[in-house]
Amino acid sequence: MNRIDQLTRNLKIIQNDEVFSFSIDAVLLAHFANIPKKGIVVDLCSGNGAVGLIISEKTNAKIKMIELQKRLATMSTESIELNHKEAQIEVFNIPLQDSLSVITHDSCDAIVCNPPYFQTRPDSKKNPNPYLAIARHEIHTNLNDIMHCSKQLLKTRGKLFLVHRPDRLIDIINACQSEGLAVKTCRFIYPKIKKDANMVIIEAIKGGKQTGLKILPPFYVHNENGKYSKEMMEIFNHG
Amino acid sequence: MNRIDQLTRNLKIIQNDEVFSFSIDAVLLAHFANIPKKGIVVDLCSGNGAVGLIISEKTNAKIKMIELQKRLATMSTESIELNHKEAQIEVFNIPLQDSLSVITHDSCDAIVCNPPYFQTRPDSKKNPNPYLAIARHEIHTNLNDIMHCSKQLLKTRGKLFLVHRPDRLIDIINACQSEGLAVKTCRFIYPKIKKDANMVIIEAIKGGKQTGLKILPPFYVHNENGKYSKEMMEIFNHG
Repeated sequence: MNRIDQLTRNLKIIQNDEVFSFSIDAVLLAHFANIPKKGIVVDLCSGNGAVGLIISEKTNAKIKMIELQKRLATMSTESIELNHKEAQIEVFNIPLQDSLSVITHDSCDAIVCNPPYFQTRPDSKKNPNPYLAIARHEIHTNLNDIMHCSKQLLKTRGKLFLVHRPDRLIDIINACQSEGLAVKTCRFIYPKIKKDANMVIIEAIKGGKQTGLKILPPFYVHNENGKYSKEMMEIFNHG
Repeated sequence: MNRIDQLTRNLKIIQNDEVFSFSIDAVLLAHFANIPKKGIVVDLCSGNGAVGLIISEKTNAKIKMIELQKRLATMSTESIELNHKEAQIEVFNIPLQDSLSVITHDSCDAIVCNPPYFQTRPDSKKNPNPYLAIARHEIHTNLNDIMHCSKQLLKTRGKLFLVHRPDRLIDIINACQSEGLAVKTCRFIYPKIKKDANMVIIEAIKGGKQTGLKILPPFYVHNENGKYSKEMMEIFNHG
């Protein structure tokens, strides 16, 4: 059943555990993405709209959400109305491969993307819930599609902000290079100290030189005692 | 002028500021490299021998140092004698491209390498001191040479441990992929909290699958007060 949750202090969001609920990944992507103050920003694989909603609070740019799953796109539209963001945010219920049917090529200043993380192999276990399987597994899209779509939509020097798993970093770098996107920064997210990173937030630039990668300071989600870190609590409170 | 310095609590090393002195990079590489207990380990671009000397304390493997610069190779030989390590460590004063003239192909269990970090371009500033220029700039070798040499020397499943700069990470990944080496772990080294990483220690496996990269916990060299961190002091004391 759909319910209304608090997304940040100022924003509400419609969720449904059987369909989709936002994760910390979306919150951290929206927080760390260095979004331009105006222009056009696209949220690819927008889910129930968490990333686009949070970034709407820090930019005047028009935000265009692309979401394949009809129920998620509908939930996003309702959340946009709930937060009175209709003038700024628009949702398109289409596959990202069809983005050029609704957004002009080479027109976007930035893209944010929290895509499905897991590769699909014949033997790979998928969530039996089809909504969650599509959101988590590369069933209807994959890194190559995302980079190809990003290249088509972005202006030269436009930026892609992507959250993903560190174990896919080499795939991400390869897919970016194939499409003329240069990975410029990585911020690794650690669940707590002394643990391996379990998330990475990447900034890539269309047409940038493939040199000079920066590794930004690490971010810890939890303290040693298992509670959210001070930094994480600040992000939940202020987006 | 040559002088004798303490390398770790148990090891001495011959240094010369006009020729070469070991850096923290070498100490961290030697500490974090997960060296097999026996077999053959090669130290490529071995400089004055710091990495090979430190790892000799944690393995019974035979260690073969490859160093192009004659004065550095001589200093290493003297340090090996000073520490009574002649039975375990051997120095070859040759270019790494000639490694197969002294080491059998596909015979090595591990390679450690602290190579020159900086790309050489016609306009790039180099150290006017030729010893330091060769140690720091890709004048006589580069990442492709190192990966090619590593592939030739390593057994299948043998490991390369490399310390480098994060801004070369994409070049490193590309060079590894070209030579059939899979980057398996990265540990980023930060000078202190809230700063970008300035070093990375990489583990790559010959013939491994190009999937499942692990990002190990971050390591901080200094505290917020600018002094060496507790972790760094422990490594200086115990290697």
